[in-house]
Amino acid sequence: MKIVVAPDSYKGNMRSAKVCEIIKSAILMEIPEAEVLAFPMADGGEGTVDAMVAATGGSLHALEVCGPLGDPVEAHYGLLPDGTAVMEMASASGIELLSVDRLNPMEATSFGTGQVLKHLLEQGHASIVMGIGGSATVDGGTGMAQALGYRLLDAAGNEIGERGGQVLSRIARFDSSLVLPGLADAKIRVACDVTNPLTGPNGAAAVFGPQKGATPGMVGQLDAGLSNLCKVAGVGGAPGDGAAGGLGYGLRVFCNAGIVPGANLVAETVGLPAALVGADLLITGEGRTDGQTASGKLCSVLAAMARGRGAKTLLVSGALQGEMEPFLEVFDFSFSISAGHVSLEECMAHAPDDLAFVIRNVMRIMYK
Amino acid sequence: MKIVVAPDSYKGNMRSAKVCEIIKSAILMEIPEAEVLAFPMADGGEGTVDAMVAATGGSLHALEVCGPLGDPVEAHYGLLPDGTAVMEMASASGIELLSVDRLNPMEATSFGTGQVLKHLLEQGHASIVMGIGGSATVDGGTGMAQALGYRLLDAAGNEIGERGGQVLSRIARFDSSLVLPGLADAKIRVACDVTNPLTGPNGAAAVFGPQKGATPGMVGQLDAGLSNLCKVAGVGGAPGDGAAGGLGYGLRVFCNAGIVPGANLVAETVGLPAALVGADLLITGEGRTDGQTASGKLCSVLAAMARGRGAKTLLVSGALQGEMEPFLEVFDFSFSISAGHVSLEECMAHAPDDLAFVIRNVMRIMYK
Repeated sequence: MKIVVAPDSYKGNMRSAKVCEIIKSAILMEIPEAEVLAFPMADGGEGTVDAMVAATGGSLHALEVCGPLGDPVEAHYGLLPDGTAVMEMASASGIELLSVDRLNPMEATSFGTGQVLKHLLEQGHASIVMGIGGSATVDGGTGMAQALGYRLLDAAGNEIGERGGQVLSRIARFDSSLVLPGLADAKIRVACDVTNPLTGPNGAAAVFGPQKGATPGMVGQLDAGLSNLCKVAGVGGAPGDGAAGGLGYGLRVFCNAGIVPGANLVAETVGLPAALVGADLLITGEGRTDGQTASGKLCSVLAAMARGRGAKTLLVSGALQGEMEPFLEVFDFSFSISAGHVSLEECMAHAPDDLAFVIRNVMRIMYK
Repeated sequence: MKIVVAPDSYKGNMRSAKVCEIIKSAILMEIPEAEVLAFPMADGGEGTVDAMVAATGGSLHALEVCGPLGDPVEAHYGLLPDGTAVMEMASASGIELLSVDRLNPMEATSFGTGQVLKHLLEQGHASIVMGIGGSATVDGGTGMAQALGYRLLDAAGNEIGERGGQVLSRIARFDSSLVLPGLADAKIRVACDVTNPLTGPNGAAAVFGPQKGATPGMVGQLDAGLSNLCKVAGVGGAPGDGAAGGLGYGLRVFCNAGIVPGANLVAETVGLPAALVGADLLITGEGRTDGQTASGKLCSVLAAMARGRGAKTLLVSGALQGEMEPFLEVFDFSFSISAGHVSLEECMAHAPDDLAFVIRNVMRIMYK
């Protein structure tokens, strides 16, 4: 009997690869003959490359590129067995790469993200999956565009040599004559669960600017700059344009990328839908699942995939929060791994043993 | 399909009857056609009469008797449909009936316990089950004996009019000529998990005396008095004689009672072994179950009964403590009801909903 194991990480406690290992080993202790397929999962945010590489047996690679403020950083990407390349913008242009006192969205650029993309395209990887959470930038993806060979021209027709959010207002048109040839044929899919528009009160500058170091004055300038970018590009808005400082929009405009909900994209990239065909059970889970907000998040997306393929879903999370009825609707079976500890520290410390224990007990009920 | 529900109380949170109600209702939400037999359980300690009455549809009754220091108290007993009477010594002679400053084992007497017994025998109840935890007394059951008509005689052949531990050293012999006639034919079974001997360093006076108000000097006098009782009675020692201030011994000597582990006695009294025949599943549980010490306690005793009759056991407790391997040996399936709360208050407050949720999920796995 086939069991597919595809948990998210238990955030702050266990990576999804570790969760997979524990679940798989617990299943086999009870049902040695089970066929267990393990897919460490991620939702497109931090850890997405690691998870996809682990899930498929791919390889991890490093590349030195320009960090958000121009200092060199070592970005990582993954190559999957089917040739797909996977990357996270945060690895090249992320907010975690800067100390808080250096945050400055007028200067911070997505140039390094473009360098990774360029490298992948030059290596012949035409299928690219990118997670775009955690950016330090509000440059509308113009830095990425510059790295890919786009020339940003001002009203006088001169190329703008600077990078970062500061250039947005000055752009009058683009010159794409020198763009990397492989880009046109590339299929770039972006994992993104943010639905913010590019500009306005819910846009990239207003909502995410302040946490990236934007003063109220900068927010106004950046929002006006993004409006200008949109006017110059002549491409209308779509949900998710405001993700990663407008990189969502930039990826659509400069790379013809498709924006896909993170869980779906990760699942499809690692081959989960195919693995679920003929499976008896999907086991998923995460650190905390909230019944009210589960809809659209990784575990519930996977549960819907499983249901569509005739497999039942067992959710096993560190904690189940909020109303219980939604759990009974979204998942076939749901358990917290908690053995009744009354402190977070104990819950964390016992999580590996508690997870194995719940899995063993459920396996006994199901199959013995 | 038949499911037997027989939980202990979740101490400090829910009575066993409430736990039964929640479990039964959760089962029927998922499996409306299930045959659910509910037996609120107890281990012979506090709540045993209530549980047995609730489990069998019996009746509760009150009787005014002498409390531990002679003040009138309202003791309770239960009558079960099969005619068995059930009582707790603590209801007539318990430590909870006295404020701490009045505790005095030299004076405290089990006389009221004897009055309840006498009343039951006079009403024709020859089968009596008694829980003996929580006594205020160290009188070796002599007070009970006095209530039943035994005359305690001193060396001069005079009847000892006093009651309590103070009389023990003065007894030279018993006169049983006036004992209640029904006593000889009664079958009195005592629920007792204490294995202490009557006297010595592990005896009733040394171990339990201090918590009943005995000074070190009193402990010595009471221990010597219990030795004297034993000498006069001429009945050798057995484990459990030291329970309830020597009432364990007194019940054997004066009432020819049988001492039975509490869980077994309660289970047999309410008819659980018979109910388990043909059952698919036993559901038991309690507030906290400790894997290391589970053996011999209520839930594990019931699990063994179920296993012997071909039923599997599901343990659902507030918390599972200690090593997990013993759970996997003693019970077929074990779960904590916790949804991952990180405070005891939250665990307590959510227990009813969390219990129902776990039961519903397990029922779905088992039967849907």
